[in-house]
Amino acid sequence: MSVLIVGSVAFDTIETPFERRERVLGGSCTYSAIAASLFTDVSIVAVVGEDFKEEHFKILTDKKIDTSGVKREKGKSFFWEGRYHMDMNLRDTIKTELNVFENFEPVISDEHREKEFLFLANIDPVLQMKVLDSMKRLKFSLCDTMNLWIEIKKKELIQVFKRVDCVVLNDFEVRQFSGVPNLILGAREIRKLGPKYVIIKKGEHGATLIGPEGLYFSIPSYPVENVIDPTGAGDSFAGAFIGFLAKEKNIDERNLKKAIVYGNVVASYTVEGFGIDRLYNINMNDINNRINSIKKCVEF
Amino acid sequence: MSVLIVGSVAFDTIETPFERRERVLGGSCTYSAIAASLFTDVSIVAVVGEDFKEEHFKILTDKKIDTSGVKREKGKSFFWEGRYHMDMNLRDTIKTELNVFENFEPVISDEHREKEFLFLANIDPVLQMKVLDSMKRLKFSLCDTMNLWIEIKKKELIQVFKRVDCVVLNDFEVRQFSGVPNLILGAREIRKLGPKYVIIKKGEHGATLIGPEGLYFSIPSYPVENVIDPTGAGDSFAGAFIGFLAKEKNIDERNLKKAIVYGNVVASYTVEGFGIDRLYNINMNDINNRINSIKKCVEF
Repeated sequence: MSVLIVGSVAFDTIETPFERRERVLGGSCTYSAIAASLFTDVSIVAVVGEDFKEEHFKILTDKKIDTSGVKREKGKSFFWEGRYHMDMNLRDTIKTELNVFENFEPVISDEHREKEFLFLANIDPVLQMKVLDSMKRLKFSLCDTMNLWIEIKKKELIQVFKRVDCVVLNDFEVRQFSGVPNLILGAREIRKLGPKYVIIKKGEHGATLIGPEGLYFSIPSYPVENVIDPTGAGDSFAGAFIGFLAKEKNIDERNLKKAIVYGNVVASYTVEGFGIDRLYNINMNDINNRINSIKKCVEF
Repeated sequence: MSVLIVGSVAFDTIETPFERRERVLGGSCTYSAIAASLFTDVSIVAVVGEDFKEEHFKILTDKKIDTSGVKREKGKSFFWEGRYHMDMNLRDTIKTELNVFENFEPVISDEHREKEFLFLANIDPVLQMKVLDSMKRLKFSLCDTMNLWIEIKKKELIQVFKRVDCVVLNDFEVRQFSGVPNLILGAREIRKLGPKYVIIKKGEHGATLIGPEGLYFSIPSYPVENVIDPTGAGDSFAGAFIGFLAKEKNIDERNLKKAIVYGNVVASYTVEGFGIDRLYNINMNDINNRINSIKKCVEF
């Protein structure tokens, strides 16, 4: 089955302690769609500006990503500039220019309304809700967000959480949203709002899945030694997670766990390159090698 | 085989967001010895003051811990006071009174010199080295430390690291010691100094073992929902780790991995009670239950 992803397509200027690159292709939609495309067909809904050229569309369509839902508007694309610390778990946002993204109103075509797997990447929860309202035969919906929306639109976000099957947050967001310092308890609090599953992304510490009947699955990250650029790790994780599920079709515990590991592994590749560079060039062989490594990492 | 532990026996005043207790029995030696005693015979070498009474000795000897190496001196025992934040991963030290610990000179008896398993709990690396010099037939030595020694006695600490088989550090200490933000790389840097194995304790995120030939083992923590008091978690981990190894005798990869999981599980009990309360009252049944749970947590 195929996946619909709604989020941002952007140009990012990224500075790490080792390198700086200007205006590389980025955005939550871009990373998650490329990751999901490793497993299944993907359609995206996003908005771009006039600086988004044919060559950029081609990057996506070469991965068989359906870009019919990408609206090209007058003005510039969403732009983000960030600088990573020596400890690349930390970064500062230098600049955010919403540009055409400021008036983004996702329009879901008749064809896209029929999709059964949906990833609501990080956008305004009001828009996430509109997308949910448009969908006709959802089988599984996954929702991401960010600290900004938890701060200024928590009420709207709670409404979205009530409607989706799974929420994916990083450890800071779980604590921020729930107000509970203990991550497991915090995730359980969020589950009480509605979503059957909560995924905690913990960066270098791996990922945890919390679900019904005490479901607790936790897996370390693949031990990446050479982190080049952490941008897009979380979105790659989410894209691979839902892409794998859509391929498998059955949403059972076993597949959810495997999807977490696939998400983990794909993200481990993403951070080994600048922007989408490494993610763009991996294949299922690469992925399966690391899946097996992770299996060994936790065997005792 | 039996284990020798050299470290501190102390009285702790602990304040958590939920409770405050004055002068409960604590110290690295106490926690690690009780944890190790779940698996094998334990002897400890430490110093206490006149406030350390028969009843306190009895707490240890009731666990069949050999306290013949505990010297009782004029003055007061080591005293520590700490206060945990609402997020109990964080704590402030309110007071540290070294008292009799200030002039601690571990004396290793002829009997203790024959021990094959040694845990050097967190004390001045100069003293750790003296202990190492005393030992006659070491099969496996484990060494802990703290941020203070990394700051003020790094050279001495490096000498100790050169001599031991395994170093156990928390994630902050790995970064502080190695100066490398990436934990895996940092641990590998530390291995280059000599120790065959480095264990990274990551609190709620579990523990990781780094060893020769790319050995990387990482396991999440047992999902404790009700953390009462985190004091002693790291020492319980180390004690259970070396206790298990001493019981198994063979230091192979399989046993090292299992020892990590046993350490993890014992520490998960420790934090569920105040001071040594919960740790003191668990048995192998309790432990094996959680070992099985963790096995399931990582199965995919």
